[in-house]
Amino acid sequence: MTRKAAIIGGGVIGGGWAARFLLNGWDVAVFDPAPDAERKVKEVLANARASLPALSDMPMPSEGQLSFMGTLSEAVAGAGWVQESVPERLELKRKVYQQIQAHCREDAVIGSSTSGFKPSEIKGCATRPDQIMVAHPFNPVYLLPLVELVPGDSPAALIAAAKEVLRGIGMFPLNVRKEIDAHIADRFLEAVWREALWLVKEGVATTEEIDEAIRMGFGLRWGQMGLFETYRIAGGEAGMKHFLEQFGPCLTLPWTKLMDVPEFNDELVELIAGQSDAQSGQHSIRELERIRDSNLVGFLRVLKDRDWGAGKVLRDHDRARQSQAAAEVSAAATTTGAPLELLPMQVLPGWIDYNGHMTESRYLFACSETTDAFLCLIGADMDYVAGGHSYYSAETHILHKGEAKLGDRLLGTLQVLHADEKRLHVFVCILKEGVPVATLEQMLLHVDMKAGRACPAGAEVLARLMPIAEAHKALDRPEAAGRFVGERRGR
Amino acid sequence: MTRKAAIIGGGVIGGGWAARFLLNGWDVAVFDPAPDAERKVKEVLANARASLPALSDMPMPSEGQLSFMGTLSEAVAGAGWVQESVPERLELKRKVYQQIQAHCREDAVIGSSTSGFKPSEIKGCATRPDQIMVAHPFNPVYLLPLVELVPGDSPAALIAAAKEVLRGIGMFPLNVRKEIDAHIADRFLEAVWREALWLVKEGVATTEEIDEAIRMGFGLRWGQMGLFETYRIAGGEAGMKHFLEQFGPCLTLPWTKLMDVPEFNDELVELIAGQSDAQSGQHSIRELERIRDSNLVGFLRVLKDRDWGAGKVLRDHDRARQSQAAAEVSAAATTTGAPLELLPMQVLPGWIDYNGHMTESRYLFACSETTDAFLCLIGADMDYVAGGHSYYSAETHILHKGEAKLGDRLLGTLQVLHADEKRLHVFVCILKEGVPVATLEQMLLHVDMKAGRACPAGAEVLARLMPIAEAHKALDRPEAAGRFVGERRGR
Repeated sequence: MTRKAAIIGGGVIGGGWAARFLLNGWDVAVFDPAPDAERKVKEVLANARASLPALSDMPMPSEGQLSFMGTLSEAVAGAGWVQESVPERLELKRKVYQQIQAHCREDAVIGSSTSGFKPSEIKGCATRPDQIMVAHPFNPVYLLPLVELVPGDSPAALIAAAKEVLRGIGMFPLNVRKEIDAHIADRFLEAVWREALWLVKEGVATTEEIDEAIRMGFGLRWGQMGLFETYRIAGGEAGMKHFLEQFGPCLTLPWTKLMDVPEFNDELVELIAGQSDAQSGQHSIRELERIRDSNLVGFLRVLKDRDWGAGKVLRDHDRARQSQAAAEVSAAATTTGAPLELLPMQVLPGWIDYNGHMTESRYLFACSETTDAFLCLIGADMDYVAGGHSYYSAETHILHKGEAKLGDRLLGTLQVLHADEKRLHVFVCILKEGVPVATLEQMLLHVDMKAGRACPAGAEVLARLMPIAEAHKALDRPEAAGRFVGERRGR
Repeated sequence: MTRKAAIIGGGVIGGGWAARFLLNGWDVAVFDPAPDAERKVKEVLANARASLPALSDMPMPSEGQLSFMGTLSEAVAGAGWVQESVPERLELKRKVYQQIQAHCREDAVIGSSTSGFKPSEIKGCATRPDQIMVAHPFNPVYLLPLVELVPGDSPAALIAAAKEVLRGIGMFPLNVRKEIDAHIADRFLEAVWREALWLVKEGVATTEEIDEAIRMGFGLRWGQMGLFETYRIAGGEAGMKHFLEQFGPCLTLPWTKLMDVPEFNDELVELIAGQSDAQSGQHSIRELERIRDSNLVGFLRVLKDRDWGAGKVLRDHDRARQSQAAAEVSAAATTTGAPLELLPMQVLPGWIDYNGHMTESRYLFACSETTDAFLCLIGADMDYVAGGHSYYSAETHILHKGEAKLGDRLLGTLQVLHADEKRLHVFVCILKEGVPVATLEQMLLHVDMKAGRACPAGAEVLARLMPIAEAHKALDRPEAAGRFVGERRGR
């Protein structure tokens, strides 16, 4: 599919889609007649640039081209994906689809960001209804992986292509099989929203108290397991059936107000807006966005470390890009006698201290990651470790030569100073724009992990290691190698 | 208040309360007539021991005494806090309160874990209704901070005391001012639960699809901001009022099934239990608990790093304990010429690699934290850094001498090798049970951060540093000081 996306409607949601596509290497053309649409999309994009790359452990692809078009027809021309995010009015949406379909490719996917309408409703009087499907994302679109994909009766090949595109930009397409008002997630959100309005109106709780009731308790649970898996655990050893039998009967208690919708008048709006100001007014909306994004990046990285839930989506996205990068490094290693250019990295928000600098221990982390990449290259990878052998660090010397800041792109290189059956002596440079910010000299020992002592490395590892060590003998010995702490320079 | 808690009912919730109190240094007496209560409580406690300490950046206090009592009267005798977590049957709860009040202190707080009943209901025919209040926690009680405290008409002094106890065990008491069925959070949970059952029954979505719809999207949002703060942002620059005006009208759409409760029959139970088995059956309940706890610890630490939401609760809890510990270290520093015993640490789950070992860069982290503690001690603390001066690490040598594992308690000690106006040369040991697992030799330079070059430290800092440096001249120079990487031992 042509890697060009057309974004029709450039609000918070449209802007988020633009950022997702753009940062994943797609060209993006935006059409929105509002005079400040370009400014708004660029603000969303700035937020996305500050957060989305922090989810990746691979360097991001080069950004695509972003353009703002004066007409819808120019925006959709040649696009492989057209995403509609115009206001939630059915008549408007239907009109927009007719315009889109008069100018877009017949094989393009047209996705609708609608949170409420069913595909059969939006397809209404379309020229080619088959190419339209609901692709409902969640704000912030550039961070949250969920897309409710409601294809209706679109052809299977187009549905498969749509899922591939969404996965390719790091999202999680949830195929909603039966069309229904508000799909799945927004039905829950509406139920909670109704109840919350009623609690505020009756003075039972303020907006702040309601928010605390959510984020100090079940909100934390739901970021990593949903409703059913959480309750399965609550049932204890007896599991889901026990939980259902215990709590099922409570269902008949009329706890929630349910159908009792509060009248939506000025008084209620004032009450809620006033409480919300008291709760959050000390932060601007931009600040709140940055706080939210930083929290979400943190949560998502936690889940990524654990290969769980939304973190699994991130890992799969990395893995697809990683295999390609590994092949490139491997090819380079066999054709050069220079220090190996092993690991491109980017300074992530979690690497920064209260001072705005890269935390000291993260320099060692960057070096360790480079050494790990080298160990993978010579076959001492996780499978090898699972077999009971590993290289352990015995001794390390670090020289700090410069500073790295948030977002800096770094490159880890490695030179083998000496290798024998048991010992591996390496020199790692962490380069920023070709200049070292830190160097590391390290002695590693090959160990039998069960016996807890050094032993010769496996023949296959040595067969890969020794030719590199041999080639590196020709290299100059780095000046910092052999230094002790406090030694004068230029000895 | 006497730091003894009586736990009446030892299920998942009672066990969680027991763990909270016990790990925060309270003695705990459990009463539950079920024959396997002791085993179950101990299993919850094992989970809590594996996760709760990981939230703290201070060593935990010594655990209290845990006892299982044969009678309710023995359990409640002398307790400052009595927590009732028996099944949700009003008659049963009322009977239990009569028994509790026949034997407990008159000044004790009696908290009820009820998720549904109002205080006025449970106080019903109590002897001293004033001392009973709802204290509704969320599973897992040992990790989630929320307690809905619904005091009804209990006296203000007792309410204040109850809040202090809850904060003291690291919880967040949310004062629910008007009593109402199911308090606040469970009203939301019930609304979502009803809707979810209906979606499963009608075949719109499976339990797994519903869980994905939650945890890939809004669940992540709700762990760090609640409903209103999230929507305030969604309103964009125009904020809450704009959001309300835009989305208010949707409220009248009959999206959710609301009052349409599915009949709770065997067929529905089988359907849900079957789908849940397909979704989560590959993990035992114990495994799911560990996965959940590990995720929650990760989320909570993310929020703690950012001093936000539930993480702020953790920080406040640490701060209270920290000031006491700092005073102890400071006193020790002035009275000894030995290496300074600066920083007790515990190996946290995030410090462990895929191999089960403490990650290499975390040894440097532990050393950096020790050096930071020293810098605070001599007055080069965060306020000093805010003034534009700081000590930067120039060069570091690490010797790995042993291994630390999850939960190990470590002690960071520091010896000053040399200090002058601009330079600070230190030797740090990370000890486990008195034996070094790693040593670090480091040269720090005092810098003018704006000018970006070395300069003399402030007079107040030197006035604290120099006497320590002078005292440390008498100490033996550590064998590893001055080593270069690969140097033979015993030179």
